[in-house]
Amino acid sequence: MARRNQHSREQLQALAIQAVRELISEQGLGKLSVRKVADRIGYAPGMLYHIFSNLDDLILHTNAGTLDTLLTSMQALSGQPPRQALLAMAGSYLALAREQTPLWQLVFLHRMNNQAPVPPWYQQRAEALFALVEQQMARLGQQRDDDAVRLATRTLWSSVHGIAVLAADDKLDVGGDVDEKAMLQSLIHHYLQSWAGQ
Amino acid sequence: MARRNQHSREQLQALAIQAVRELISEQGLGKLSVRKVADRIGYAPGMLYHIFSNLDDLILHTNAGTLDTLLTSMQALSGQPPRQALLAMAGSYLALAREQTPLWQLVFLHRMNNQAPVPPWYQQRAEALFALVEQQMARLGQQRDDDAVRLATRTLWSSVHGIAVLAADDKLDVGGDVDEKAMLQSLIHHYLQSWAGQ
Repeated sequence: MARRNQHSREQLQALAIQAVRELISEQGLGKLSVRKVADRIGYAPGMLYHIFSNLDDLILHTNAGTLDTLLTSMQALSGQPPRQALLAMAGSYLALAREQTPLWQLVFLHRMNNQAPVPPWYQQRAEALFALVEQQMARLGQQRDDDAVRLATRTLWSSVHGIAVLAADDKLDVGGDVDEKAMLQSLIHHYLQSWAGQ
Repeated sequence: MARRNQHSREQLQALAIQAVRELISEQGLGKLSVRKVADRIGYAPGMLYHIFSNLDDLILHTNAGTLDTLLTSMQALSGQPPRQALLAMAGSYLALAREQTPLWQLVFLHRMNNQAPVPPWYQQRAEALFALVEQQMARLGQQRDDDAVRLATRTLWSSVHGIAVLAADDKLDVGGDVDEKAMLQSLIHHYLQSWAGQ
């Protein structure tokens, strides 16, 4: 509470999100609480409740930052020919899972308390990511209708997600070592080869 | 403790595993403890420690039962032509994720405490499942060497896993509804179409 007036609302929000990142890297996802975040940044928990409505809200803001980072890195790759773009985007998705595993898991493992709906400002970010991939798929499958492009985008990205999930969990070692980048390449090459009919 | 002598070791093991199944269905994965399992079956926790070395061991035995069920259902599908067999096997994997979500999550989300290694009797089950899929891939890709078959098997199954993970979490709804069975079909059809070169 000593620091109550030292930071603007925006600064405090950024500090809290940074504290969430540090705490989950150090202690995992299960032990996160508003009190711990407040302790870490030297404020009383009540102060955080002026900025975030609850722990869910704080987690969603943290996750939005993660999705924004991913979106920025994927956007930077979208100017290439579609197959290369898709492989590079999948690579940046995998890199996030590998290099920022707790942050990545927080995006996918977090569930809203009491089944509260995900707010629109968050949903929009997930959709923007999806749209980036869909755009490349539409470029590749020019003769396909929107439903077909959507199905293929969903299929390919869920598959990339599967490789990323197993890589992040170090669960790819059943049946011998396999390079996850070789898996991404194999997936994207063969799926697109048949789907785009080239 | 009143019931201490009513059950054989095997019966008690089965009762405890059944109790784990019920508890995670009712309360999720996070709250499981040896004490709760003991309470549920009317024994003292100490009795369970005669049978399972710790909570990890009890969870692994529960998971082994889940993998055995999956193995049995996948084995029953292995007599078909390889593409049909792979699609049907993927379907039974997805069905488990959908219909027995907590049990399925326990297999994939459980991590050994203190990074203890997974014991061989458990590892063998995971390998047996993988071998079933690999067998079908080897039938399809007769001109491919072992490494190529292994990479493709790993790639395809991680992809199936990704669809199952998102389906089980109800996280397939970004960007409009898509039927997860249509996704499995699309994945397996296009991947194999290019990979098997037919």
